[in-house]
Amino acid sequence: MNIVSIIGLIISTVVLVTGLKLASDDISMFFDGPSLFIVLGGTFAATSVSFQLNRLGLLLKIFFTQFINEKGKKSAKLIKNIMQICESARSGEPYESLVGRAEDHFLKEGVQLIADGILESEQIINILEHRADQMAILRSEDTRKIKSLGKFPPAFGMMGTTIGMIVLLANLGGADAMKMIGPAMGVCLITTLYGVILANLFVIPVGENLEVSTRENEIQNKIILEGIKHILEKSNPILVAEDLNSFLLPKDRLDWKMN
Amino acid sequence: MNIVSIIGLIISTVVLVTGLKLASDDISMFFDGPSLFIVLGGTFAATSVSFQLNRLGLLLKIFFTQFINEKGKKSAKLIKNIMQICESARSGEPYESLVGRAEDHFLKEGVQLIADGILESEQIINILEHRADQMAILRSEDTRKIKSLGKFPPAFGMMGTTIGMIVLLANLGGADAMKMIGPAMGVCLITTLYGVILANLFVIPVGENLEVSTRENEIQNKIILEGIKHILEKSNPILVAEDLNSFLLPKDRLDWKMN
Amino acid sequence: MNIVSIIGLIISTVVLVTGLKLASDDISMFFDGPSLFIVLGGTFAATSVSFQLNRLGLLLKIFFTQFINEKGKKSAKLIKNIMQICESARSGEPYESLVGRAEDHFLKEGVQLIADGILESEQIINILEHRADQMAILRSEDTRKIKSLGKFPPAFGMMGTTIGMIVLLANLGGADAMKMIGPAMGVCLITTLYGVILANLFVIPVGENLEVSTRENEIQNKIILEGIKHILEKSNPILVAEDLNSFLLPKDRLDWKMN
Amino acid sequence: MNIVSIIGLIISTVVLVTGLKLASDDISMFFDGPSLFIVLGGTFAATSVSFQLNRLGLLLKIFFTQFINEKGKKSAKLIKNIMQICESARSGEPYESLVGRAEDHFLKEGVQLIADGILESEQIINILEHRADQMAILRSEDTRKIKSLGKFPPAFGMMGTTIGMIVLLANLGGADAMKMIGPAMGVCLITTLYGVILANLFVIPVGENLEVSTRENEIQNKIILEGIKHILEKSNPILVAEDLNSFLLPKDRLDWKMN
Amino acid sequence: MNIVSIIGLIISTVVLVTGLKLASDDISMFFDGPSLFIVLGGTFAATSVSFQLNRLGLLLKIFFTQFINEKGKKSAKLIKNIMQICESARSGEPYESLVGRAEDHFLKEGVQLIADGILESEQIINILEHRADQMAILRSEDTRKIKSLGKFPPAFGMMGTTIGMIVLLANLGGADAMKMIGPAMGVCLITTLYGVILANLFVIPVGENLEVSTRENEIQNKIILEGIKHILEKSNPILVAEDLNSFLLPKDRLDWKMN
Repeated sequence: MNIVSIIGLIISTVVLVTGLKLASDDISMFFDGPSLFIVLGGTFAATSVSFQLNRLGLLLKIFFTQFINEKGKKSAKLIKNIMQICESARSGEPYESLVGRAEDHFLKEGVQLIADGILESEQIINILEHRADQMAILRSEDTRKIKSLGKFPPAFGMMGTTIGMIVLLANLGGADAMKMIGPAMGVCLITTLYGVILANLFVIPVGENLEVSTRENEIQNKIILEGIKHILEKSNPILVAEDLNSFLLPKDRLDWKMN
Repeated sequence: MNIVSIIGLIISTVVLVTGLKLASDDISMFFDGPSLFIVLGGTFAATSVSFQLNRLGLLLKIFFTQFINEKGKKSAKLIKNIMQICESARSGEPYESLVGRAEDHFLKEGVQLIADGILESEQIINILEHRADQMAILRSEDTRKIKSLGKFPPAFGMMGTTIGMIVLLANLGGADAMKMIGPAMGVCLITTLYGVILANLFVIPVGENLEVSTRENEIQNKIILEGIKHILEKSNPILVAEDLNSFLLPKDRLDWKMN
Repeated sequence: MNIVSIIGLIISTVVLVTGLKLASDDISMFFDGPSLFIVLGGTFAATSVSFQLNRLGLLLKIFFTQFINEKGKKSAKLIKNIMQICESARSGEPYESLVGRAEDHFLKEGVQLIADGILESEQIINILEHRADQMAILRSEDTRKIKSLGKFPPAFGMMGTTIGMIVLLANLGGADAMKMIGPAMGVCLITTLYGVILANLFVIPVGENLEVSTRENEIQNKIILEGIKHILEKSNPILVAEDLNSFLLPKDRLDWKMN
Repeated sequence: MNIVSIIGLIISTVVLVTGLKLASDDISMFFDGPSLFIVLGGTFAATSVSFQLNRLGLLLKIFFTQFINEKGKKSAKLIKNIMQICESARSGEPYESLVGRAEDHFLKEGVQLIADGILESEQIINILEHRADQMAILRSEDTRKIKSLGKFPPAFGMMGTTIGMIVLLANLGGADAMKMIGPAMGVCLITTLYGVILANLFVIPVGENLEVSTRENEIQNKIILEGIKHILEKSNPILVAEDLNSFLLPKDRLDWKMN
Repeated sequence: MNIVSIIGLIISTVVLVTGLKLASDDISMFFDGPSLFIVLGGTFAATSVSFQLNRLGLLLKIFFTQFINEKGKKSAKLIKNIMQICESARSGEPYESLVGRAEDHFLKEGVQLIADGILESEQIINILEHRADQMAILRSEDTRKIKSLGKFPPAFGMMGTTIGMIVLLANLGGADAMKMIGPAMGVCLITTLYGVILANLFVIPVGENLEVSTRENEIQNKIILEGIKHILEKSNPILVAEDLNSFLLPKDRLDWKMN
């Protein structure tokens, strides 16, 4: 479980409920079924057209693997893992036995390709480079699209409010219309409220959160790619450490002198 | 028929009708001819100027081929096709007989150029690279423009509402003006509603959907380009499989060991 | 005359007039001199500062040459022209006599440079590449700026409405103020209406139209550049055809086998 | 004095004053001290934080040198200057005596580096390339930031209006509140008006104007860079003319045949 | 202490308080606890989700180190420092004794790598280049995200106002509702006010300020990188001065002739 993201969502919910409570003791007044249907339904409909329904599963998968699940795979740990594999390869251990020691999926893929012994070093590097690039492109495109969904909830909030106003105004002119107009307009605004909440407390922040994960993932793939090169060249471990450390901020760097 | 896109549009329509029904039993109150004319007519006019009328056909063609029609040409199937052709070329089969086995238009074009035997390998690669690039540029530009159309419906919705308000306010001051103003304002808002609906349930989502198709198309062209290189070099099939697989996400990859 | 662009503008005007007619029989009620002055004057003032007055002429020139005039110079025709020149050069015809046969300005410039015989092939290619790049940069910058003008009319529309409202509200509080406020507010809104119309039916679509022309121009310059290289190398005509065709969409390609 | 930019600002002011006059004879009704303070003060405060106070001087300097002052340094004149220097260098004149003939600051810098005779040709080119790049980056960043200031005035206009409305509404409920509300609301709107005016008649257009200057400057630096290469290589003057001309639009080109 | 940034924030606060004072003597009327909670709480919640809670510390660190703390490390001083080290290296001083003289963290890191003597020159350059790139990417991403936070406060301001309006309108219809509505609406608007203030006087300007710092930092790292190359090559000091000066605007350049 990725505690920090969950806590973030809990904070959002608590702030929302507290905010509503502060405005009115009777929190149920902010609930309106049809408004909820219009905002959620509209956003779902727009998403299903823009993402091509059959890819909605992918959307949920991205959400669960990147947002909810443990992102534990720390870059520093990954570097240590690569250094150990590189050390073993240097000391003559056969690549076949190293495959099992790779803790990351992409790293394992790379070591496997070396162990297979069919392709030449340059071909392996080219293929892995290609894969890292391609994954980065696909993931960042998906993240960008998820972020772009943030524009739909406010739009459907506005649509709902407009629908409500049309009905309200059409029925105006009756006897006690003036008494009715206030509460009715209040109900109209609930759709706007739902749109703002859905977009700003959930869709947009989650999209930006995924962007951070995507970036981290991209960096880790670059680290692995660089690492595979060192494994192939059986590089000096100090060079490996200094080189891979470059991907981290100074404070996160692995101190190879203490390694 | 591309079922998923059609279903997406059906979901949009159902959500819209249900939303309107929930707001008022008399759904005909949301229909107003002049409002429809202003939003649709305005959007059409703006589109006809920005796209240069004679290219509107292209617009519809893009919509039908990419959105409505079957997108079936799956990348995995394409890779298998390339691998078979490559295998056959390796086993000495003449290129002429391979042209007919290419299932994709661009792939066929490439194999044909090889079969023609007039141009050198490098020239063929250069030309195909050029074509893939050029198609990618043209298509992504068109998609970007379609997406940019999404800004027009809300603008014309607002224009219609403003026109309605001007007329309404000009006629104010009469005897039972106050009784009239409500329903009249409601009618004004219908144009806004049409703008929001057209943009957010149809134009923008369809534009984003086309963006996904465009990207898939681009990837497939890159796969073909890479494949043609392997066909020319009569590469080792394992290298071909590993190389082309790099364009796919891990879960979509073709397992050449089982091939 | 470029019929399609003119027709586009006519459609815009017809839609606008019909829309106003549908809203009110007395179309003159939508005309207000001061409002027109504020929107047009403001947009002109902002344009004159952002474009540097003396370049406004350039703006008009771009509008007339790219938007109003015939864009006839079709890419396919251009390719045929280049192929003929290349063929003639191959058959030993002196370059001097080929200059006159170039139908495009930039192509003529290139052939002239070859005919001059002062510069070496590589220098000629470098210079022409440079020119194509530079023209592309300058034109796309200008187009981008024209498109960015679309933000001014709505801003000045809003400015006019705000000015109107300030005056209106200041005069409130008199005897029959309530009777006056409606029509006066209607007049205020006319400025908003002008802003929306000017931006969405004219400035923005024309800007996007110019973008398409700019792109076409850029592609044609690339075709010419590639063609000049072939003329210098006196390439095989099939290579020329296949190579230059790459710039066109499959359906627009010139079939050299029938040539 | 750069007349065109000054005239642009005068046009803006005339349009503004005329627009206000058309709306109300008593133009003083559009003046409100506190509103002016909020919009100007807020924009100044936001600018001082985002630009880091000590760089505000730079802002003014950019404004005066690029916007107000003569931009006279025409590209065609610059090319002629370079050609003369190149010619003289070719005819054996020592570089020391050429330094004084360079009319542009950056050109003089380049010729000085050659005259110094300490660095090798390649080093000189590298250093000047570096400088041109760096100046382009710094200038375009500054211009981009100035343009981005355009978002502040409307925001502070809205802030002022909101403040005014809060005070107004709080005092509502008194005896002749209804008589007061109109004029008071009018005053609230004045802040909005100031925000729109400041942004759309001044800040944004000036920002875009500076963008044009920045681009021109960048092109001139590229011309100089290319020119220095030719001076170092003592190139054929025709090559110099044809090469440098490439930076200009066809109509602006220097005709070396007439030179 | 970085005086200029602090003064900027003080100016913002003074403008804000003065603006409020000008509008109403009783400044306490602009304070409303629940509104403050919704805007600050909502912005915090959205930030905690989008930044992943555990990175909020990093956010504060960036704020304090880049915004509040002394940015003293001037580029000119840095260049002088590099020149001295380069001079000493040239005069044969061992690298070990030069490490301590490097005043910048990244410069020290580079000299240390040289002093270690384990890696070859090319490897050192590659690693440092890599680090500078990576730091630039990470920092500019973080800055971009901080700037993007500016969209949240206005959104939550609008959310609060909508919540307030819903409650207000629901309670309408009572006896003295009309007397109540004014002040109540005023309170609703306070949330909007908070959103505008937080975004435009604080979050957005601070974000842009950090962007300037990030850019300066990036330039200094480039200077150091270039400097390390010169130290490794023990370059001619004039070349070093001319080369590093290229990163500065003409007026900031170090005059090596006076050095």
